[in-house]
Amino acid sequence: MHEHHHAHRVRYRECDRMGIVYHTHYLDYFEAARTEMIRELGVPYLTIEDSGFLIQVVQVNIRFHSPAFYDDELLVTARVSKLPSSRLVIENEVRRKGETKILASGQIDLCFVDAGTKRPVRAPDYFVAALERAFSA
Amino acid sequence: MHEHHHAHRVRYRECDRMGIVYHTHYLDYFEAARTEMIRELGVPYLTIEDSGFLIQVVQVNIRFHSPAFYDDELLVTARVSKLPSSRLVIENEVRRKGETKILASGQIDLCFVDAGTKRPVRAPDYFVAALERAFSA
Amino acid sequence: MHEHHHAHRVRYRECDRMGIVYHTHYLDYFEAARTEMIRELGVPYLTIEDSGFLIQVVQVNIRFHSPAFYDDELLVTARVSKLPSSRLVIENEVRRKGETKILASGQIDLCFVDAGTKRPVRAPDYFVAALERAFSA
Amino acid sequence: MHEHHHAHRVRYRECDRMGIVYHTHYLDYFEAARTEMIRELGVPYLTIEDSGFLIQVVQVNIRFHSPAFYDDELLVTARVSKLPSSRLVIENEVRRKGETKILASGQIDLCFVDAGTKRPVRAPDYFVAALERAFSA
Repeated sequence: MHEHHHAHRVRYRECDRMGIVYHTHYLDYFEAARTEMIRELGVPYLTIEDSGFLIQVVQVNIRFHSPAFYDDELLVTARVSKLPSSRLVIENEVRRKGETKILASGQIDLCFVDAGTKRPVRAPDYFVAALERAFSA
Repeated sequence: MHEHHHAHRVRYRECDRMGIVYHTHYLDYFEAARTEMIRELGVPYLTIEDSGFLIQVVQVNIRFHSPAFYDDELLVTARVSKLPSSRLVIENEVRRKGETKILASGQIDLCFVDAGTKRPVRAPDYFVAALERAFSA
Repeated sequence: MHEHHHAHRVRYRECDRMGIVYHTHYLDYFEAARTEMIRELGVPYLTIEDSGFLIQVVQVNIRFHSPAFYDDELLVTARVSKLPSSRLVIENEVRRKGETKILASGQIDLCFVDAGTKRPVRAPDYFVAALERAFSA
Repeated sequence: MHEHHHAHRVRYRECDRMGIVYHTHYLDYFEAARTEMIRELGVPYLTIEDSGFLIQVVQVNIRFHSPAFYDDELLVTARVSKLPSSRLVIENEVRRKGETKILASGQIDLCFVDAGTKRPVRAPDYFVAALERAFSA
């Protein structure tokens, strides 16, 4: 298992007429968290693209348990529990900093794609190896 | 069953470095489609809010089957197949205009909430009645 | 002078804690309006890109006179008053449908760029010719 | 003069088909930078709202000098050079971390508004006092 906690301050533009974070922005939080989680592995996404792979989102599942509010300091967790084949599954949770209650939880399924053919391919070896090292650390 | 087809032209700001619609924007498409679907029932969302109810998103599930591209003309379907209790389930599909292939499909679960207490409540009677009329039409 | 009026319904995601359209979304309204204005000229943006040109935003100036609210039906005007050299200036106004009061007004300065070198170039002849025809219509 | 430098990492969702940051997102960068600049004064925006004031954007002016790219680390400057009356003017610049070249520069004019009447009012005394302290520090 490899996970990363990404801090995010809720912005005015993210809050709706009800004064709570509009649901779409959680996807942005998840993007930032998994980007930093992958960077922490030592294989930033740009490196992956430069080696001829793209990563596309193929499925999104989010449950909203309790609202987040303007100016809240959030911790957004991105976690990988399983080595990828072509598909890479990321689990996400959002909490207020210093709290254990989960405000939202989600799963994002990504797919490695060949940048040329745009067809699904196995995750590059160096990426799988980096995850294996993180899993055993 | 009651459904509505909402037309959307893909904008530049919605497309990413891969030249395809970035996944988060499908949630915006779904919002527009269900808003117009509800308006077509004769109970626009503002009327619902004015009568003391809010509708919050509690779960989101989207599958991305095939990319949409810049300037594509999309048809976004929002459909209700079941009368709501507190929860209102909307099924969505995105197709290119004139095509049958589904680019993305999703389910958005909404919850009626009392605007004062912010607690889940049964859908207002006039809303259920409007859906019943639509189902039997 | 060539102008286009683009209809837009204000969405929930566009409104902030004050219940008004958050200022950033006016830029999205302007994008949609100028895209359709250019399409009406007979030279949709995709055609321009396909012929080796890009259009980049180089300056933005917006004044917000009066707020727009959730579910408002807006008319967004995009107007060209002057033939472009490298720079194409678009004037925008936002009104509520059926009203004359201007809610927001803006000017967007665009620049034609060679898709290969990424350097500013004169607007393509067919684009200038299409504008000339529209100006004299 | 009081200024703050806010770090921002460019996200995938912010980049367009040209591979550069789409212009609208600079407004989001500016929002984050001025929010943190105001927090640093000791009067976070929530405190201002709690004391009965709102701050609305009344004018936006941005010049885009050079593109920012995916995964760039940006420093976004927010600066106040003049004590506010009703209007508070924020100057912004965006640079790549460690570089002096300005990628984008902008001015955002804000207006203090009475939360009840929604009419322009003078900035609250404690806010002006906090700025005066910062100016003389």
